[in-house]
Amino acid sequence: MTATPPGTLFTLGMGPGDPELLTLKAARILGTAPVVAYFAKAGQRGHARTIAEGRIGPAAEELRFDYPVTVEIPHTDGRYVDAMAGCYHAAAEAIAARLGQGLDVALLCEGDPFFYGSSMYLFDRLRDRFPMEIVPGVLGMSGCWAQAKLPMTHGDDVLAVVPGTMTAAALADALRGADAAVVMKLGRNLAKVRAVLAALGRAERAVYVERGTMPTARILPLAEVADGAAPYFSMILVPGRQGPR
Amino acid sequence: MTATPPGTLFTLGMGPGDPELLTLKAARILGTAPVVAYFAKAGQRGHARTIAEGRIGPAAEELRFDYPVTVEIPHTDGRYVDAMAGCYHAAAEAIAARLGQGLDVALLCEGDPFFYGSSMYLFDRLRDRFPMEIVPGVLGMSGCWAQAKLPMTHGDDVLAVVPGTMTAAALADALRGADAAVVMKLGRNLAKVRAVLAALGRAERAVYVERGTMPTARILPLAEVADGAAPYFSMILVPGRQGPR
Repeated sequence: MTATPPGTLFTLGMGPGDPELLTLKAARILGTAPVVAYFAKAGQRGHARTIAEGRIGPAAEELRFDYPVTVEIPHTDGRYVDAMAGCYHAAAEAIAARLGQGLDVALLCEGDPFFYGSSMYLFDRLRDRFPMEIVPGVLGMSGCWAQAKLPMTHGDDVLAVVPGTMTAAALADALRGADAAVVMKLGRNLAKVRAVLAALGRAERAVYVERGTMPTARILPLAEVADGAAPYFSMILVPGRQGPR
Repeated sequence: MTATPPGTLFTLGMGPGDPELLTLKAARILGTAPVVAYFAKAGQRGHARTIAEGRIGPAAEELRFDYPVTVEIPHTDGRYVDAMAGCYHAAAEAIAARLGQGLDVALLCEGDPFFYGSSMYLFDRLRDRFPMEIVPGVLGMSGCWAQAKLPMTHGDDVLAVVPGTMTAAALADALRGADAAVVMKLGRNLAKVRAVLAALGRAERAVYVERGTMPTARILPLAEVADGAAPYFSMILVPGRQGPR
């Protein structure tokens, strides 16, 4: 009697939101995987699962992992770190159980798996134990600049991708040497980010995109957006130099 | 008698090289567009056209635009600028002629159209005259870090994308404030880029990827790559901080 060979963990980039921006490869794997896993906020369907609608095989087992509810806890708090570590540990073990039975698992990830994705925490936990394949996806920021019709980087432009959570001084340092910029994780940081961009002379060309490529997308010049909390799926795009031609 | 409404220019991101990393949307438009346009180096098939193989409708007209041969001319030379401007102008007018007849045109672009794409020069020339739609694609760098199994950015990491053509001092400035980095356009700049990364303490974790996602891909630690000219489709990836979990 031979041991069952382990299954492969396929981590699938699901793209920015429009289900038609899935790759042919992700769609193929999604339709045949015996197990489909994803994260979601408690009480919500989950963005990655929504994109997958209609493409999961009828006999597939779905493994849904709820993020712990941590709204009240700062991300630097040990309780937050512990809650997230517990969530990732439990998810990794649930997936490992299926892989150990020889079943392939498709793990769904918004955007691209290795660009700010939660799936990396599972990859780190399982990479030495099971075969892994990563299917890259269209980045959220690509979806946003395409829909905004905003050519971003020409020729020898430098692009900086920064989280709005940084301090104003650190943001300015990271953006000063860049021609083009993407500011993610806006949340409550919109006023701070705007002030930094204005000080660098970049606010005028900046464009705000909310829920890019989704039916409820909102795209407007940053100058027309009021300060205040921005939703999770929002970012600011600053295009680089225009090309010489 | 009513005038023919103009066609739409669909600029399609073709992804990093693996034809299965095309999006469902790009594949659909590619299969139905009456005109398919692309750039290629003289004497070569063209990377974007190669990815499209087998997906173009049988009745489609193909518009191939040869890049002018400018190997001997520095990019800062007026003759180079003039040659490229002439190429883009002729391509824009050939596409405009079809759009004016009411025909949709699919313009193929390696990677993502608005991320260092030649198609932006046609977009700039035609955007005020015809309807435009941009279909984002999987970035070359996403394809590379997925195949290298290299998680790039966690949490609040800053990512810098820089061309290797910059001076050593400018490269160091652009990379100093970043956690993760992608260095493109290596060409003859490999030794310089390596020296800058070493001075910043980033050379050890750096990975070199050549022709990512293609059958001839080559992936190895930067330390194992000899100095010398690197091919056009190569880049260096420096992963960011590891996550706290």
